[in-house]
Amino acid sequence: MSRAVVLVSGGMDSLVTAAIALQENDETCFLHVNYGQRTESKELECFNQLCQYYHPFKSLVIDMPWLGAIGGSALTDINLNIKEHDNSEEIPLTYVPFRNANLIAAAVSWAEVIEADKVYIGAVEEDSSGYPDCREIFYQHLQNAITTGTRNSPPIKLMTPVIHLSKAEIVKLGLKLGAPFQYSWSCYRNSKLACGVCDSCFLRLHAFKEAGAIDPIPYQQKEQ
Amino acid sequence: MSRAVVLVSGGMDSLVTAAIALQENDETCFLHVNYGQRTESKELECFNQLCQYYHPFKSLVIDMPWLGAIGGSALTDINLNIKEHDNSEEIPLTYVPFRNANLIAAAVSWAEVIEADKVYIGAVEEDSSGYPDCREIFYQHLQNAITTGTRNSPPIKLMTPVIHLSKAEIVKLGLKLGAPFQYSWSCYRNSKLACGVCDSCFLRLHAFKEAGAIDPIPYQQKEQ
Repeated sequence: MSRAVVLVSGGMDSLVTAAIALQENDETCFLHVNYGQRTESKELECFNQLCQYYHPFKSLVIDMPWLGAIGGSALTDINLNIKEHDNSEEIPLTYVPFRNANLIAAAVSWAEVIEADKVYIGAVEEDSSGYPDCREIFYQHLQNAITTGTRNSPPIKLMTPVIHLSKAEIVKLGLKLGAPFQYSWSCYRNSKLACGVCDSCFLRLHAFKEAGAIDPIPYQQKEQ
Repeated sequence: MSRAVVLVSGGMDSLVTAAIALQENDETCFLHVNYGQRTESKELECFNQLCQYYHPFKSLVIDMPWLGAIGGSALTDINLNIKEHDNSEEIPLTYVPFRNANLIAAAVSWAEVIEADKVYIGAVEEDSSGYPDCREIFYQHLQNAITTGTRNSPPIKLMTPVIHLSKAEIVKLGLKLGAPFQYSWSCYRNSKLACGVCDSCFLRLHAFKEAGAIDPIPYQQKEQ
């Protein structure tokens, strides 16, 4: 018997990660975190649709409003502008300080209580926006912290199955696994339709194009 | 200029850690986390009294109710009994799964936003209740995760100044630094007076006795 917790944001990477976890485990539990991001309602809607689609063994939604309230990110602070994609190599303003550590810590706490042996996160290093908490080296150190900071033996295993995939490879893998991309939201803006021009839309659209597939969600505009 | 974030629970170990941080830094910020623990109101009261006493540069209270809601600990689940101290070497039921990782992750996020260069936590390894997330090895790995998972350079430094002190040494150091022990709460029970017989009261009373000092807070009973 294997039981996994998957962090499911409602985005494309975590959707494909969930599809992988469902294949690799007997019981899969979905965890969603609201942290005051602009697109909280959109993401939660996708999470609920994914729960209806996949019927996970357990599901849990938790709130971390303070992560947004402390500020420091355009993803949570509406006074900071979401920039259009510009090929810059700097860490973008959308970086939420140490967000993924907070998500993993919560997921590991839950995993410990419900006796899950793995925690999955859809972090992507290679083809991402350059966030420090998406790098494999960070997850290696975090694994060591989990191994020494929990009572589980064997330790809870941190799984990052898409970390070295390109966004196009993630799309291809998701299509192969039948992942319902129509129930995912990647845009950084909270509008009715995805904007098509923020960093996240840019990467997603480019990925579908490279994978030779059509993204099933509608866009305001598609910059090529 | 040095700026520090200190996790201040309202307990004795974090009080002395705060007193140390105040000496070591130009600006010290206090962070308190409510996580649905039985003694939440008592601890928050102490935190507010400590803020009035020390006037930190900044203070912040955040809520993690889900950490209590997921259960798994006698500290948060009123259906589990708080046992009296019994010299057992097992991890006690009061262990809150991976709690300190959640606290540190939040503190590091805040530190990143307010440009603090250190995060202090009053974890005690040697003379504690045997929680895995109080061990130095865990904090060493977590430091590596902070170094690789944040954008700060130099990285935010994780400080555990009392980790190798005995509880008696913590009391002695606190007295030397003038720490207001009257504004601290260690008891695991949420009664008007500290119970005097839970693990935490036992360790505290024993520590004051060994330090040759009188604990200024009142107790229901004192088991010797």
